[in-house]
Amino acid sequence: MTTWGESHGPAIGAVIDGCPPGIPLCEADIQPFLDRRRPGQSRHVSPRQEADRVRILSGTFEDDRTDGPVTTGAPISLQIDNTDVRSKDYDAIRDTWRPGHADFTYDAKYGFRDYRGGGRSSARETALRVATGAIARRVLGNEINIRAALVQLGPHKIDRSKWNWNEVDANPFFCPDKDSVAIWENELDQIRKDGSSTGAIVEVVADGLPAGWGAPVYGKLDAEIAGAVMSIPAVKGVEIGAGFESAAMRGEDAADEMRAGPDGPVFLSNSNGGVLGGISTGQSLVVRFAVKPTSSIRIPRRTLNRDFDETTIETRGRHDPCVGIRAVPVGEAMIAFVLADQFLRHRGQIG
Amino acid sequence: MTTWGESHGPAIGAVIDGCPPGIPLCEADIQPFLDRRRPGQSRHVSPRQEADRVRILSGTFEDDRTDGPVTTGAPISLQIDNTDVRSKDYDAIRDTWRPGHADFTYDAKYGFRDYRGGGRSSARETALRVATGAIARRVLGNEINIRAALVQLGPHKIDRSKWNWNEVDANPFFCPDKDSVAIWENELDQIRKDGSSTGAIVEVVADGLPAGWGAPVYGKLDAEIAGAVMSIPAVKGVEIGAGFESAAMRGEDAADEMRAGPDGPVFLSNSNGGVLGGISTGQSLVVRFAVKPTSSIRIPRRTLNRDFDETTIETRGRHDPCVGIRAVPVGEAMIAFVLADQFLRHRGQIG
Amino acid sequence: MTTWGESHGPAIGAVIDGCPPGIPLCEADIQPFLDRRRPGQSRHVSPRQEADRVRILSGTFEDDRTDGPVTTGAPISLQIDNTDVRSKDYDAIRDTWRPGHADFTYDAKYGFRDYRGGGRSSARETALRVATGAIARRVLGNEINIRAALVQLGPHKIDRSKWNWNEVDANPFFCPDKDSVAIWENELDQIRKDGSSTGAIVEVVADGLPAGWGAPVYGKLDAEIAGAVMSIPAVKGVEIGAGFESAAMRGEDAADEMRAGPDGPVFLSNSNGGVLGGISTGQSLVVRFAVKPTSSIRIPRRTLNRDFDETTIETRGRHDPCVGIRAVPVGEAMIAFVLADQFLRHRGQIG
Amino acid sequence: MTTWGESHGPAIGAVIDGCPPGIPLCEADIQPFLDRRRPGQSRHVSPRQEADRVRILSGTFEDDRTDGPVTTGAPISLQIDNTDVRSKDYDAIRDTWRPGHADFTYDAKYGFRDYRGGGRSSARETALRVATGAIARRVLGNEINIRAALVQLGPHKIDRSKWNWNEVDANPFFCPDKDSVAIWENELDQIRKDGSSTGAIVEVVADGLPAGWGAPVYGKLDAEIAGAVMSIPAVKGVEIGAGFESAAMRGEDAADEMRAGPDGPVFLSNSNGGVLGGISTGQSLVVRFAVKPTSSIRIPRRTLNRDFDETTIETRGRHDPCVGIRAVPVGEAMIAFVLADQFLRHRGQIG
Repeated sequence: MTTWGESHGPAIGAVIDGCPPGIPLCEADIQPFLDRRRPGQSRHVSPRQEADRVRILSGTFEDDRTDGPVTTGAPISLQIDNTDVRSKDYDAIRDTWRPGHADFTYDAKYGFRDYRGGGRSSARETALRVATGAIARRVLGNEINIRAALVQLGPHKIDRSKWNWNEVDANPFFCPDKDSVAIWENELDQIRKDGSSTGAIVEVVADGLPAGWGAPVYGKLDAEIAGAVMSIPAVKGVEIGAGFESAAMRGEDAADEMRAGPDGPVFLSNSNGGVLGGISTGQSLVVRFAVKPTSSIRIPRRTLNRDFDETTIETRGRHDPCVGIRAVPVGEAMIAFVLADQFLRHRGQIG
Repeated sequence: MTTWGESHGPAIGAVIDGCPPGIPLCEADIQPFLDRRRPGQSRHVSPRQEADRVRILSGTFEDDRTDGPVTTGAPISLQIDNTDVRSKDYDAIRDTWRPGHADFTYDAKYGFRDYRGGGRSSARETALRVATGAIARRVLGNEINIRAALVQLGPHKIDRSKWNWNEVDANPFFCPDKDSVAIWENELDQIRKDGSSTGAIVEVVADGLPAGWGAPVYGKLDAEIAGAVMSIPAVKGVEIGAGFESAAMRGEDAADEMRAGPDGPVFLSNSNGGVLGGISTGQSLVVRFAVKPTSSIRIPRRTLNRDFDETTIETRGRHDPCVGIRAVPVGEAMIAFVLADQFLRHRGQIG
Repeated sequence: MTTWGESHGPAIGAVIDGCPPGIPLCEADIQPFLDRRRPGQSRHVSPRQEADRVRILSGTFEDDRTDGPVTTGAPISLQIDNTDVRSKDYDAIRDTWRPGHADFTYDAKYGFRDYRGGGRSSARETALRVATGAIARRVLGNEINIRAALVQLGPHKIDRSKWNWNEVDANPFFCPDKDSVAIWENELDQIRKDGSSTGAIVEVVADGLPAGWGAPVYGKLDAEIAGAVMSIPAVKGVEIGAGFESAAMRGEDAADEMRAGPDGPVFLSNSNGGVLGGISTGQSLVVRFAVKPTSSIRIPRRTLNRDFDETTIETRGRHDPCVGIRAVPVGEAMIAFVLADQFLRHRGQIG
Repeated sequence: MTTWGESHGPAIGAVIDGCPPGIPLCEADIQPFLDRRRPGQSRHVSPRQEADRVRILSGTFEDDRTDGPVTTGAPISLQIDNTDVRSKDYDAIRDTWRPGHADFTYDAKYGFRDYRGGGRSSARETALRVATGAIARRVLGNEINIRAALVQLGPHKIDRSKWNWNEVDANPFFCPDKDSVAIWENELDQIRKDGSSTGAIVEVVADGLPAGWGAPVYGKLDAEIAGAVMSIPAVKGVEIGAGFESAAMRGEDAADEMRAGPDGPVFLSNSNGGVLGGISTGQSLVVRFAVKPTSSIRIPRRTLNRDFDETTIETRGRHDPCVGIRAVPVGEAMIAFVLADQFLRHRGQIG
């Protein structure tokens, strides 16, 4: 996958190469995933109104002998036009570095930066990750089910005993615990009122994975997941299975025991989150990641301008009070993408 | 870096390509780092006695005009002979999958496995990561200082207010808090007595990094760190800066403010751990990772053999009760390696 | 560089990542190179009328402090709309394999193919190579001058003693020998009348290259040139310096002698074409490649259809009688691209 | 494949990753190919006596349930000790650049060079290409037969009508035309007497290849072949099928016609050498490459030393009068390697 584009340019896009041929794929297969990530859908996310309509510009083919459009095996080009661009919003910050953003680091690296909408550092590029994830799901097939949920918003964790996947799309937070929804609503209402923001933790679960995907030292499944997830903007931590809890565990609790099941091994626990030695065990793959609070807040923060003068900044504009919410479909997509890539490489080596 | 070898073969090795020419490098530059990782140095780590003598087989050159051996720019081949191989130790487990190990997943992937010493899944390969890390430090130069410490052993966290880097090499745990040493000794003595094991958390800090290394979407510094660290055997989680704590933070606390200093920006906090938008800020790079408890324990665990019969296994042999201890130099090495690689690519793009 | 698109889709495009920041770049820097490759400019090339207007969709930035648009260091997305698509032209060949084309091999690989305009196998993708080459020239700077010419059309070689670079753009063949132009015109007029086609040889010369770019075994300059040039559609051979003539040479003639010049070594000959041991010598880089005759001809050829029935085919449509002509700017572009890439990697390793 | 080592170090080696598991492989499978390339086997090649004994240090496994050693899927490490090192031979050239060699270019790139035996630029690394090629053949299986022959030595081409594969290993030149052997012997005897050297052309033919390997733009089979073959030391040109002859051909002759055969298409000619659009046709793959004359000759040549003083050099030592001879097994190996790599990637994408 290669992505391109800035949020204030005419469009953003992605190119996906190496997709197997003959896979049914049209824009309607991708759009629903984009719609889940799209801003403007509740008062708890950015009010920006991006239609986020994806177009497939290459790599699929349809004639009277195919049952709808299918992939050809050639590079798939996806494109999303930028429709709600407001350049004025960013004039104030062209010379001032917003704390928590990549403004200073871009200037430090490149000598200048495209400040319009954050340029390349805009999280708008995650729309393409989501679109690519939809294609990855088609490559993986229906046996593999990749879902995610928000398991913590600010200081409020869900009650895991109340986890219900059906709730996830029934509230604006992708929250699997019905009883946490009201608490989170109150929290976010207060945060918006304060002009602040908050962090969150996302959990992604992939079911239906066969045992054997991954590799021992290079191409480890867990290493590629960690790299892919940490590359999502604002992510500051990633863990698999028991993750950081592993540190306090004893060996007899952390090493998942096995019994014989009707279709192969049955594990009695999943502290390893479905990966051992960089290779999938056939259990559920369980990944969690932490998303920091949105850096664009109305509360004044101390900073510098490009002349190294001390100043303060209040970031106005149409920002999410908790970017972790919209990171849920992005997390799913990154796991789908890594798994599809691992699947094709596994098939290459093993046949 | 490419590594090869199994712990029961004649040797293990690594090949490092792309190293700049003219860098002083001899075996004595690498050996001290290997010695820190070597087993058999206290009762708290594996009693195995691997000399872990590294040899440089290619890529350096010395004559009467060079001041000792220097890199030539050609691939550097490192090799470490395996000297303390006891194949008998592993006969018991050739047909039985050890819980928490890669035994089952290797069989699932490859159809069989090299069970001697864990084959390719043996953590012995981390010796090569450490050796490569020593070369990466030479590439980075003396301005950049990469250090690590154990900050949690089992349930016992250090008191961060007592952090003293000088303590780290004064105890067998790489513990920076003098007062935690006795507590950890007691914990590990009990664990060994129980035939069990425990997990740990390692923190790596890199100082002296310039601002500007990394890239926006591909080659993000934090993403490459996450991938590299998660590829270390037994690692289940990685975080940067405030990491998972970010989830509960407010935006005004997480976005590190800036003031003018004599040599550029001074940050008033480091919640982002020295990385913003995938690019270094010039602050200390702060990475933590969780290591699960050693899976090889004497306590009997339920498992299967290769015929899918239910059985139990007690793993004897010479194992570390806490592999997290020896993961400290490995963590340093992986950060050094990622930084050296980023440095060279940064220089390529920016000049 | 990643390219995408089929000649019968809405557009074709390319994404170039890793470009240094701050390089002046606008569409007018690219368009002249595309115009040289464009069809429809003389009776000797395809009469298709593609405007081939390139648009830059990302990766550049302009404000009142930059002197026009400059690269930002982020991925550059180029796009060219397809404006002269005639699907009818290809209906006849949807079930029949055209000899010399990739029709059969695509079906053999993918199980089916996008037959509209050749799909991914259309040489229309070379427009993107040319556009990317224009960017590569900006990266390389004005010191390096990359030019190409047609040195053989069908059986007719130029007289090298009459080589004049100024002639190259003064005739429709990129021919550097004024006296060959009439001969080639007659040849091509006859070929078109016969409904046939012919091959050609292109020579690319890059001047101003410093000594030292390339690498010993991986990333050899000559190996990357060979791979890049052979990837141009219809190319069947590539040689550097004396190339295939080297086989009949003696060592004393092939090993270019050196004398001292005012700015370093002066070579007394250039049998090695500016590359020794995979690294540039600082001489002119000289590359030649052979382009086979256009496979689409009006003369009936024996072939099979997708049901393996024997049949014949006459390929009508708007084809070039000698694709080697339009391969001239493509060859320049590929050399520019390889050199820019080598330059950045050289700077990474050596500084 | 990663290779390392210099001809005057203790050893040279290669690491091959991604090999499928379960493939029978032992040193005796590799050695015969090395023996074909080894120097010292006739008066027509270098009298150096390298035993070239290959050792497999990792990546294979044997127990009482395997039928001999098999690959495990982990990296295979190959090593060949350097046994006939004579450093004295090279003292004369430590400060003087040998024309035709990489001496000057290495100094230009790296600032100095390992002059012992040519360092990294020594063609001794081709032993590892041959060894890796032997493994690639095992990956490809017995259906695919890769053979090569010398088709031109100096100015003397073979008579292709007399081609007999059985002759190739019956003479010291890998010559398939019995009647050329005496001519070539006379030629080489004269060349040795003159203290000179000569070039050659090698032809590699791979039979049994299925249709469908390769890819349209990236990973083109012919492009990867060109890159791999041009990376062989002293190679100056590579062509596929009719190659440079294509330039003078008409379209009706160059586009290979097809008829129906019992097992699929039968091509009536092979001007395209088994590749169309970057993908294999199922015909014989036919590749030719030109090898320049050995640069190390006894005839004095004008050159410079490192202080840019003009001087002359006569290269003594134990050199091949025609390195093209020993390039025959190297060419086979590179084709085997590219094909094995393409096979695994094809299987990954297509299944």
